[in-house]
Amino acid sequence: MKKINVCLSPALYQFYAENNTIVVMIDAIRASASICTAFMNGVKFIVPVSEIETALSYKKLNYIIAGERNGKKLNGFDFGNSPFNFTEEKIKGEKLAFTTTNGTQAVNLVKNDKHKNTELIIGSFINISALTEYLIKKNKNILILCSAWKNTVNIEDTLFAGRLAHLLLQKQKFETPEATNLALNIYKNSGNSYFNFVINNSPRLKSKLHFLEKDIKYCLTEDITDVVPFLKNNELHI
Amino acid sequence: MKKINVCLSPALYQFYAENNTIVVMIDAIRASASICTAFMNGVKFIVPVSEIETALSYKKLNYIIAGERNGKKLNGFDFGNSPFNFTEEKIKGEKLAFTTTNGTQAVNLVKNDKHKNTELIIGSFINISALTEYLIKKNKNILILCSAWKNTVNIEDTLFAGRLAHLLLQKQKFETPEATNLALNIYKNSGNSYFNFVINNSPRLKSKLHFLEKDIKYCLTEDITDVVPFLKNNELHI
Repeated sequence: MKKINVCLSPALYQFYAENNTIVVMIDAIRASASICTAFMNGVKFIVPVSEIETALSYKKLNYIIAGERNGKKLNGFDFGNSPFNFTEEKIKGEKLAFTTTNGTQAVNLVKNDKHKNTELIIGSFINISALTEYLIKKNKNILILCSAWKNTVNIEDTLFAGRLAHLLLQKQKFETPEATNLALNIYKNSGNSYFNFVINNSPRLKSKLHFLEKDIKYCLTEDITDVVPFLKNNELHI
Repeated sequence: MKKINVCLSPALYQFYAENNTIVVMIDAIRASASICTAFMNGVKFIVPVSEIETALSYKKLNYIIAGERNGKKLNGFDFGNSPFNFTEEKIKGEKLAFTTTNGTQAVNLVKNDKHKNTELIIGSFINISALTEYLIKKNKNILILCSAWKNTVNIEDTLFAGRLAHLLLQKQKFETPEATNLALNIYKNSGNSYFNFVINNSPRLKSKLHFLEKDIKYCLTEDITDVVPFLKNNELHI
């Protein structure tokens, strides 16, 4: 039987990594949703970048550069990390370099992993049904990798992991180790009212509501798109 | 307002550690319960030891040595990690050196931490009410440090963290960051039927039921003792 495992922080990835695994990188609020939105609106491909300086160097290569730290757009960047930046008008046919506080770090962790046959895809609420179908077709062990908040566990990624595990288990039997059951418990408690659940459980997000409410609601909306971005040669494609 | 935070794995400790914090080390099944049982039955003090070789060297110093890896007693040791080993007959007035797969590693992590005014105490279901009172009296920020399973998140320590946070919040207001709320959600789902909840959510513990059932039930029983072991000069005392 295949397995669904959940890694609640990039700092724990080494203890969960295995051969022949498809890793679903999630940064539910907001990098994953922004990446999916960019593809929905026709971006050519995306280069995930850890360092701010590296992202800036892509500017000279005619990339659009998007970058955020601690929820705020970086100086010298075209966009921050709001999915509403990535409109068709601005992004269609363009190449994008993207750096965020948590999300792109997780992508690079998997990229540098030495395990065999590791594939990486991007998961978010906005592509969750397409993602579920993609994973079922792949028929591999699945590791849901939460980007977390500066390596500390966060509620929204854990909730997402539980929701995705729940959808997968509706399609097929999987082994569920205890981190997966933990995430399933969190999902169960959300009562499908993701926004209220996340805000009630995350003082961090609650404190940012005055400038992030619209983004948070968008990022917690299911099935806006059916793109499933995957990593190939250090670039995200669909 | 003081804060209750929860660190779900020793590998995340560095991201949660702060000055002026009282760290509650938990390895609910079984090290924490064994340590509390040993004190309940009159052990003089306990030296937590990471390495097997180091623990063995204490044998020559007339210590009783207890040691376990992967749930099994180590060769050359007096006891493994079952709380039922630590009877008054065997332990009263004795000095004990103790090494376990997960628990003693977490103690040593805190011991070597450079943060100021960090205190470490041992928490388990079997001393949870005494522990709650102790923490309320101390009036410091609290970090509940889960020993986890080889650095991967486990259900029983997360459940314990939620239960302890719940008891503390009944006494007094605290800030609860999202990892604490996550643990509170897990506790809420247990319906106070800890044994069934833990076994249903942990394939790892379920697979060990044939030799651990009695131990697991004991370790999940509240208020068997009112000892609260604390670390002082590399030794645990009460």
